[in-house]
Amino acid sequence: MRTLYHHTLSAAARKVRLVLHEKHLTFDERVVDPWQRDPTLIALNPAGEVPVLVENENPIVDATTICEYLEDAYPENSLLGSMPLERAEARRLAAWFDVKFAREVNDHLVGEKLIKRVTSRAAPDSRALKAGRENLQTHMQYIAWLTERRRWLAGDQITVADLSAAAQLSLLDYIGDVPWDNEPLVKEWYVRLKSRPSFRCLLRDTVPGVPAAAVYADLDF
Amino acid sequence: MRTLYHHTLSAAARKVRLVLHEKHLTFDERVVDPWQRDPTLIALNPAGEVPVLVENENPIVDATTICEYLEDAYPENSLLGSMPLERAEARRLAAWFDVKFAREVNDHLVGEKLIKRVTSRAAPDSRALKAGRENLQTHMQYIAWLTERRRWLAGDQITVADLSAAAQLSLLDYIGDVPWDNEPLVKEWYVRLKSRPSFRCLLRDTVPGVPAAAVYADLDF
Repeated sequence: MRTLYHHTLSAAARKVRLVLHEKHLTFDERVVDPWQRDPTLIALNPAGEVPVLVENENPIVDATTICEYLEDAYPENSLLGSMPLERAEARRLAAWFDVKFAREVNDHLVGEKLIKRVTSRAAPDSRALKAGRENLQTHMQYIAWLTERRRWLAGDQITVADLSAAAQLSLLDYIGDVPWDNEPLVKEWYVRLKSRPSFRCLLRDTVPGVPAAAVYADLDF
Repeated sequence: MRTLYHHTLSAAARKVRLVLHEKHLTFDERVVDPWQRDPTLIALNPAGEVPVLVENENPIVDATTICEYLEDAYPENSLLGSMPLERAEARRLAAWFDVKFAREVNDHLVGEKLIKRVTSRAAPDSRALKAGRENLQTHMQYIAWLTERRRWLAGDQITVADLSAAAQLSLLDYIGDVPWDNEPLVKEWYVRLKSRPSFRCLLRDTVPGVPAAAVYADLDF
């Protein structure tokens, strides 16, 4: 019995959904609103944040912790690799996207255009949007640099690094903010990810009042 | 051959120093300034952040990634535990202090009183100090709640959870900002940590121009 408490606008929760599907672990879903201090969520996680995975009544909290737990408990279809240095590179890049990309790009663009709209209906701050767009260019160049040298971001195999990056980018893609045509190698890598069965759950996500950009669910964008 | 690039004001780097000492792994130290965009640091870590551990010429980046790498490569003296759920609890609490406590307490108090002083000589923002002090009370209560129920924060054994918490608190303690007398159980837990040989390296740290509070290096405060 496995239930994931998540929200469609949480990149951290999107990553865990991708990880669960990549590891072929079935789960029920409960969408909860982390901006409403939902008592069910607070009881599971005193930090009041999604995602929370409940497995046999044990709550497992924090996206990175959930991914590490799933690797510990279900080592098949590893998303970290086997050698310590290889695992370190996958974890380094996962943290890069979970923390640095989130703070420099998604907090500005997704935060202003989607989350602010859903939580307060306030208008986006144009300086934040400008900063987010500029930072996104630098990050796209870094992803391009990696995809020039490696099949997947951390090496020969798909890892949590790809899924962390895809989780962030998928939200930007929902609002049509990814300049795919500037970076063909990044686009080719993302097409490969987007075509995987694990990605289908994200492509069905909708945000009330904000229709997805035309490219979002299109596998041939 | 193992070198840690770190800075005395980085809680993340303090945690890694504690982990290396707890695992009895010897290392050289290089103090680098993450606020100066040091070219040596950027070459090792494109994010330009400390800590970076270099082992046999391989840079390992990001504090959590370094701790996980050390567990993978040197499983003796584990700081995570052995069972998946036990490891998840240690990781959950480590993330709590690394991210939530850092953002709600240390970014305000240590950020305003120490880091701002070292980087810009600007005066602290009194609203940030007030917010930090209020948030610290809530966090002290949470640590008290844990120490009432468990010998160490995540269970019977010392883990990365204790070391993450101690790394943050040690910086607050340097400026004399921890209300130890309000929470005797938290103080008793911190005395146990502070008395461990791994902690000695932190107690010798000094910040130029800012003398440590009287309690900082005192084991009987």
